[in-house]
Amino acid sequence: MTNSATNLRLKLPMACIILEVIIIILFGALVQYDDETDAKLWHKEIANGSSNYDNDFYYRYPSFQDVHVMIFIGFGFLMTFLQRYGFSSVGFNFLIAAFALQWATLMQGFVHGMHGGKIHVGIESMINADFCTGSVLISFGAVLGKTSPVQLLVMSVIEVTLFAVNEFIVLSVLGAKDAGGSMTIHTFGAYFGLMVARVLYRPNLDKSKHKNCSVYHSDLFAMIGTIYLWMFWPSFNSAVTAHGDDQHRTAMNTYYSLAACTLATYGLSAVVAHDGKLDMVHIQNAALAGGVAVGTAGEMMLTPFGSMIVGFLAGTISVLGFKFLSPILEQKLKIQDTCGVHNLHGMPGVLGAIVGAVTAALATKDVYGDGMADVFPDIQSGDVEASFQGIRQAISLAVTLGIALLGGLITGFILKLPIYGAPPDTICFEDGIYWELPGEEGSHEELTTVRTPDEAEKQIRIGLPM
Amino acid sequence: MTNSATNLRLKLPMACIILEVIIIILFGALVQYDDETDAKLWHKEIANGSSNYDNDFYYRYPSFQDVHVMIFIGFGFLMTFLQRYGFSSVGFNFLIAAFALQWATLMQGFVHGMHGGKIHVGIESMINADFCTGSVLISFGAVLGKTSPVQLLVMSVIEVTLFAVNEFIVLSVLGAKDAGGSMTIHTFGAYFGLMVARVLYRPNLDKSKHKNCSVYHSDLFAMIGTIYLWMFWPSFNSAVTAHGDDQHRTAMNTYYSLAACTLATYGLSAVVAHDGKLDMVHIQNAALAGGVAVGTAGEMMLTPFGSMIVGFLAGTISVLGFKFLSPILEQKLKIQDTCGVHNLHGMPGVLGAIVGAVTAALATKDVYGDGMADVFPDIQSGDVEASFQGIRQAISLAVTLGIALLGGLITGFILKLPIYGAPPDTICFEDGIYWELPGEEGSHEELTTVRTPDEAEKQIRIGLPM
Amino acid sequence: MTNSATNLRLKLPMACIILEVIIIILFGALVQYDDETDAKLWHKEIANGSSNYDNDFYYRYPSFQDVHVMIFIGFGFLMTFLQRYGFSSVGFNFLIAAFALQWATLMQGFVHGMHGGKIHVGIESMINADFCTGSVLISFGAVLGKTSPVQLLVMSVIEVTLFAVNEFIVLSVLGAKDAGGSMTIHTFGAYFGLMVARVLYRPNLDKSKHKNCSVYHSDLFAMIGTIYLWMFWPSFNSAVTAHGDDQHRTAMNTYYSLAACTLATYGLSAVVAHDGKLDMVHIQNAALAGGVAVGTAGEMMLTPFGSMIVGFLAGTISVLGFKFLSPILEQKLKIQDTCGVHNLHGMPGVLGAIVGAVTAALATKDVYGDGMADVFPDIQSGDVEASFQGIRQAISLAVTLGIALLGGLITGFILKLPIYGAPPDTICFEDGIYWELPGEEGSHEELTTVRTPDEAEKQIRIGLPM
Repeated sequence: MTNSATNLRLKLPMACIILEVIIIILFGALVQYDDETDAKLWHKEIANGSSNYDNDFYYRYPSFQDVHVMIFIGFGFLMTFLQRYGFSSVGFNFLIAAFALQWATLMQGFVHGMHGGKIHVGIESMINADFCTGSVLISFGAVLGKTSPVQLLVMSVIEVTLFAVNEFIVLSVLGAKDAGGSMTIHTFGAYFGLMVARVLYRPNLDKSKHKNCSVYHSDLFAMIGTIYLWMFWPSFNSAVTAHGDDQHRTAMNTYYSLAACTLATYGLSAVVAHDGKLDMVHIQNAALAGGVAVGTAGEMMLTPFGSMIVGFLAGTISVLGFKFLSPILEQKLKIQDTCGVHNLHGMPGVLGAIVGAVTAALATKDVYGDGMADVFPDIQSGDVEASFQGIRQAISLAVTLGIALLGGLITGFILKLPIYGAPPDTICFEDGIYWELPGEEGSHEELTTVRTPDEAEKQIRIGLPM
Repeated sequence: MTNSATNLRLKLPMACIILEVIIIILFGALVQYDDETDAKLWHKEIANGSSNYDNDFYYRYPSFQDVHVMIFIGFGFLMTFLQRYGFSSVGFNFLIAAFALQWATLMQGFVHGMHGGKIHVGIESMINADFCTGSVLISFGAVLGKTSPVQLLVMSVIEVTLFAVNEFIVLSVLGAKDAGGSMTIHTFGAYFGLMVARVLYRPNLDKSKHKNCSVYHSDLFAMIGTIYLWMFWPSFNSAVTAHGDDQHRTAMNTYYSLAACTLATYGLSAVVAHDGKLDMVHIQNAALAGGVAVGTAGEMMLTPFGSMIVGFLAGTISVLGFKFLSPILEQKLKIQDTCGVHNLHGMPGVLGAIVGAVTAALATKDVYGDGMADVFPDIQSGDVEASFQGIRQAISLAVTLGIALLGGLITGFILKLPIYGAPPDTICFEDGIYWELPGEEGSHEELTTVRTPDEAEKQIRIGLPM
Repeated sequence: MTNSATNLRLKLPMACIILEVIIIILFGALVQYDDETDAKLWHKEIANGSSNYDNDFYYRYPSFQDVHVMIFIGFGFLMTFLQRYGFSSVGFNFLIAAFALQWATLMQGFVHGMHGGKIHVGIESMINADFCTGSVLISFGAVLGKTSPVQLLVMSVIEVTLFAVNEFIVLSVLGAKDAGGSMTIHTFGAYFGLMVARVLYRPNLDKSKHKNCSVYHSDLFAMIGTIYLWMFWPSFNSAVTAHGDDQHRTAMNTYYSLAACTLATYGLSAVVAHDGKLDMVHIQNAALAGGVAVGTAGEMMLTPFGSMIVGFLAGTISVLGFKFLSPILEQKLKIQDTCGVHNLHGMPGVLGAIVGAVTAALATKDVYGDGMADVFPDIQSGDVEASFQGIRQAISLAVTLGIALLGGLITGFILKLPIYGAPPDTICFEDGIYWELPGEEGSHEELTTVRTPDEAEKQIRIGLPM
């Protein structure tokens, strides 16, 4: 199963170590503690009357840890559904997330965090770096099983950079609101990844078809990812909103949206699936669409009622997407979207952007009171009308789609170069190509080839479970 | 394995979508943000001198998320111990929890949260809704493997409603204390579920006996549930107690109770199990009984010493219950309690209620100081004597048992109607009846039937692992 | 597989119940709520102007829960990598952790927490007890698979006691800083465990060699442990540092160290492993070394740059240790280190101690400002020079190594007594010796021995999957 083309003994170490050395040098040159993490600066604030209990650590760190769990457990295990790609799903997720959060700290710092030539870091930069990482992991879902870890690292380098640029345009130039990232994270990550998958289209991927499916226990591992994403999504959407009612309301709106989405998902899954049975693919993915779809409007006065309607719609379009749209994407548009990120992040992200634009356009002082300053500072200050805020939101969606698609296109062509150790069509979705595998108890392959205890013994010893 | 009786193509979508639409309409008509989540109202409080850091979000949300993990991961994975019911365990747990938390918000709101004709929601209502959901999931444990998701949804509708009524009587009418729900959650959920299981008694359930057991990895999945329940139980019991010493003390009492319970469980398991070996059923369940048993008294001045004694007792009766009482319940009382909820929630819940009554009756101003106002406001105000508070606690246990048993009885008869797609006796404890299953690697069934690679290939293709 | 020597029907219950009864008696005699958990005392503070929101519960409990998850899920599942030792890995981890946290509360209380003859407990004592427990679990990793639960309990009794003594010497007598426990937890736990493993050396352990390896899904379970340890390590290192910038900075330094460590681990693993493939053993363990290595210096002004260098080094030495040092330890020094704790905790712990000493020696008022008082109170007060603080740190490392090695030696000889039901050489790494096992679907053993459905049925019935 190993040959020189996919042997990563030089490529992966070079990629990892060169990238990490570059990061360390840039951190040494550019990165400083912010006012809340620096001993001297914080104690100046203490001397000026602050309390240690005012440190933002206490008001952001629990949210950060929930987001962290979503990034590393949530995304990592969600992708373990493939029967023989669990090591890569969790392991490459781990690798590219650990890289991307460092790179994102630098890129986001360059674009909107420089203070006197230095990047200041603290709990907010940690959350934002994890957010950016989430976007990369969404794209990873589209190309899962068909890419080498070196390709994924190269993709991360480019995607993180473009994410930071797009985020800057959307939030700072256009003045849109997108606390939970319906646009900047989900729409961006999904369409970027789909475009990469399009360029990397493999006409002969059906040679690996028997690996591109789940087994019983791999679906249970995937449910760990699903449930953690579902539970902590309220923390995700509220992690960087303003303190007070804003975080509180965002978390609650997300909670209701997800609950309604889940009911819609189960209902629709039984309608469209074979024999009225539930399909794990829908449950694992579509039930989360409600979190994506209130990523923009969650901090607004969407009301629990509105949140539930959005969640219900998101679950519905997501299940229908898996059933009817994914086959079309693959056959007509030649987009092989392994995890169905178009259904979980793409369409619900666009829905979320639209809901955000409409909700923003309907904002009134009567409803928001002085809270308007937190959610829409430009409306509060009189710089813009609510309707114009809605337009800015809509433009942001268009910009995000444009940068994502163009960026994905370019990245796809860069990743197409035959130098990264990508797997051949015949052994996609297979850990054995990049991982030393233990002897497997009762795998299908063994089941039908092992004949005697001695042979089994030998196979296990030489590490060839397949 | 599928036939028209258990085909849910119409029944499950109808149940999910009708229920969700009713909920959304009721939310639209009745539910509002509370003072801490509404932009305008909160900023009025800010204008009156509050700080954003005073928002209750920061003092309840971390507890809420721990409770949330218990509900969705804890209960969900605890029940994956069955070898072929993991999808249903996690998946139906997910479905009915997502439904029940919405329905509970409404029912609890009706009963004790109306403000000017509206239900006000915020972090406390979210925690309380999750608590009520926990009760439903306990009942689910009693009927696990023998019920369709439609039955479970119907059960949830009724149980949540009765839970809210009972909770109102116990906490508001009778003035009992039960922060961690020894009575309102555990006793109620267990006896309700046991009564439902009694009515749904299946004399021929042994036809599915070979499925009603665990396999090696399913027990490991179940341990994920157990450990999460164990770790976060301190957050559960303290989630809605008064701020300050009360939350702090409740969490700590629970921590000690669980630790002592765990030692008792291991010790007793080795005594009663075959050959002096440990039994996973005990470890997965009885080790948690210590959390249940301090659900009422945990917020009181029970002391670490008292907590440990209670935990030790709870672990002991729980292991003994699994060993000696469960077979009797099944054979004599015809209660087929799949997860043994009587041993984990029933008896320890009653123990917790009694411990709570005794501890309350012993409360003195000398021990509680001004903290009496938080724990027993009626004693502090002089309205009642401590001894009478103990009596109120005891009456609350009786009321809870009464409502649970009667409610379970009625619910059982409603669920007995042959319209919900319940599984036949021969294929209980089997995911395949409600889920599209992937091809299984090395399942026992394949092992003994697959003869050639071609046949295996074919079986997997047609999705018939059994 | 069972015989009288390993039958624990009397031994384990006696150990569990006697130990728990002793603990309960000691708690009854000695342990009291502290000022923040006692109703009366806290309300005196309230009367003096404190707010309930100032209760330390709100500033430590989220960290505590993260640490709790690391102890019970992190360590427990990390060790499930062995193919047939998952029940014991999670289950014995659960047992000895539940015991050790109670015992640690007493031992740490005796040594440095007595107030008027009483041990005061609250959230800090809970965190410290979990920390001490972590040390025991590290030692457990060295002897995993070769010890009975009774041996492990006896080891815990001694190790917790010596941990408390060493911690007192290092932190209180020598005045060293070690918030995340590079020395007191990791170095101590690792070298203690390695010495125990040395004394318990089994020359014929290769008789159980075929069990001493992973299978595909057991490696995925282990990744749950790894990822949780990785995510929550920032909480671990910052859990008991001073409030404000200190906790904030410690968490952030750890986050960067781990990220850099992960890149180094993947790079090095592909270099040293067979065929340029990644080795799960490295990923599961070495990627965590960055957390260990900033356990001392994390609270200091190490900077993100410095943290990354330390993490990178830690990952590098850890992978190299697994590849080149572990075989030498086993063959030359006769130390059979099941989990490789020398590579994950031993060497990175020593590295962390050295980094801490150097960073302390370089501390200047110019960098720390008034924050010096939190990190190095003795330097702030002028009692010592920074350089001398560095020396105190270095001495602390030596003391820790001395107590760990000597303590491990003595403990090893105590555990060598043939009275604890230790497994024979032929059935190490095997759950079946201490656990009632369910019938296994498709285990290797069945695969090659089961011939007919009837036989399989029978095997499952009599509970003999092997």
